[in-house]
Amino acid sequence: MSIKIGIMGYGNLSRGVEAAIRQNPDMELAAVFTRRDPATVKVRTEGVPVLSESEILDWKDKIDVLVLGGGSATDLPVQTPKYAEYFNVVDSFDTHARIGEHFGNVDAAAKKGGKVAVISVGWDPGMFSLLRMVSDAVLPEGKHYTYWGKGVSQGHSDAIRRIEGVKDARQYTVPVQESVDKIRNGETPEFTARQMHTRECYVVAEEGADKARIEKEIKEMPNYFADYDTTVNFITEEELKKNHSGLPHGGFVIRSGVTGLEKENKHIIEYKLQLDSNPEFTGSVLTAYARAAYKLSKEGVSGCKTVFDIAPAYLSAKSAEELRGHLL
Amino acid sequence: MSIKIGIMGYGNLSRGVEAAIRQNPDMELAAVFTRRDPATVKVRTEGVPVLSESEILDWKDKIDVLVLGGGSATDLPVQTPKYAEYFNVVDSFDTHARIGEHFGNVDAAAKKGGKVAVISVGWDPGMFSLLRMVSDAVLPEGKHYTYWGKGVSQGHSDAIRRIEGVKDARQYTVPVQESVDKIRNGETPEFTARQMHTRECYVVAEEGADKARIEKEIKEMPNYFADYDTTVNFITEEELKKNHSGLPHGGFVIRSGVTGLEKENKHIIEYKLQLDSNPEFTGSVLTAYARAAYKLSKEGVSGCKTVFDIAPAYLSAKSAEELRGHLL
Repeated sequence: MSIKIGIMGYGNLSRGVEAAIRQNPDMELAAVFTRRDPATVKVRTEGVPVLSESEILDWKDKIDVLVLGGGSATDLPVQTPKYAEYFNVVDSFDTHARIGEHFGNVDAAAKKGGKVAVISVGWDPGMFSLLRMVSDAVLPEGKHYTYWGKGVSQGHSDAIRRIEGVKDARQYTVPVQESVDKIRNGETPEFTARQMHTRECYVVAEEGADKARIEKEIKEMPNYFADYDTTVNFITEEELKKNHSGLPHGGFVIRSGVTGLEKENKHIIEYKLQLDSNPEFTGSVLTAYARAAYKLSKEGVSGCKTVFDIAPAYLSAKSAEELRGHLL
Repeated sequence: MSIKIGIMGYGNLSRGVEAAIRQNPDMELAAVFTRRDPATVKVRTEGVPVLSESEILDWKDKIDVLVLGGGSATDLPVQTPKYAEYFNVVDSFDTHARIGEHFGNVDAAAKKGGKVAVISVGWDPGMFSLLRMVSDAVLPEGKHYTYWGKGVSQGHSDAIRRIEGVKDARQYTVPVQESVDKIRNGETPEFTARQMHTRECYVVAEEGADKARIEKEIKEMPNYFADYDTTVNFITEEELKKNHSGLPHGGFVIRSGVTGLEKENKHIIEYKLQLDSNPEFTGSVLTAYARAAYKLSKEGVSGCKTVFDIAPAYLSAKSAEELRGHLL
């Protein structure tokens, strides 16, 4: 009997989850829920019903885990606590500053309903968090660095698109090689944001728009660009489509620590991701944690969990014997 | 109240554990046990008693976790099941082919005594296993590669030392850059042992020994060297001491996988370690899992565990709130 997964929403991330489910023979996609008119949503897995979000509670006993594909700004703060009472759920909530609050809300709902909720799953937060945490425990005297890219930041691309005169845009976050080399070399400096990443923007301007003003607005935008060395390239719509239509991403977490009675020995732990498709990889991580939520729920566990709280074996379709035999 | 750790044995690995305990303020070294005459063993932590192994059961209620610093060939297969009945234990058992058997023996003993035993902890098996397993669950369609080095293999160094006419030796395992580049480039070939690693040997010959014969014996040694491109360098005892006295090691695990409905997107996960001191890093990992064994035991858990069975948060001295606040 396979694990029945429901997906809320059908954007890039949800499609990534849909594709991942097909690679996991112990799972099946049971239904997709949408706020749009279901008739307008065509899913790529044959025979899977698309339903209005308003019907979701009818699926309470027909779905083992509900994966929430929405965004952290407005969708997940509402949806995850709302549905954690009725379903085992997994989300990719990534607003770091609000994780404590989100955890509390979701935990209360999941405990009330006797369900398992796994929040903040993906690669950062998610896999990168796992690596930061385990490396911090193993090398308690040290420092960690997180680099993102080279890859497309959807938040920064959206911020550029909101500028007047911008038709479309794509922003790449790029690690500064010079600072990376220092860390890999065993140094543990304090870096400013500017020393760690640069921002490369590809912008399609509307006809007649003032490009100098657009460039200035981008470069001076607080939080997003002002603290970075930012380059702005104006390109045509065709170039954007041809050269910048993918959503590659990646990055790396490095922990540099010392051991020894005199702290004389250095150790460097590095975890690196190179992803052709950010939403498909994130969807794959969500899918593995959906399996964990299912297994934990079967064991009678309830409440909110993060990647820190789940033993790795729960992520796998393989038995404990297989894991010990082939992967230990 | 800190976690009281006992260490069995006082070789390189045990000294690594001793050093790591000093970096973890929630722990203290309670005692070191030895098969030698305790009067001949001088530990580096002031005030810590050195006792004969025969007295260890008197310490049943004075130690929270016993870390076993012995070797996989003859020590651990006997010691871990023997002591898992009386103590929470952690070992670094690394004979892959016998892990199933070891797990069974240790599990029975630990369950009998109501204790937690964590086996096969270190970096491989250990951290590398964790990464292989999690990456396999996240990217189920893919292939993984494990590279060791550049670093000193103690098993291979010992094998050379057993050859007649060899006074001392050090063997480095070195990844073949050409094959690494292929994998990092997204290819997933099948490699022979020879295509993945070379073996560099530094040998001090006894006076008058037949170097040609020694070199031939090394290069033709089955399992250890015959399947690899091996280079043998004869050096003086002084050179060995000066240039090869450390025990650096490291390596990396790479998983290359695909996602997408047409499996059109590639993803590469890489976990890399660069270690100045193999025994100190391994000791640091054992120490973090000793904390996990202690916490699990406090929760009433018993039986044998591997890195696959333990939620990451158990490794850390930090609270769940701190972890979510700073490392998620």
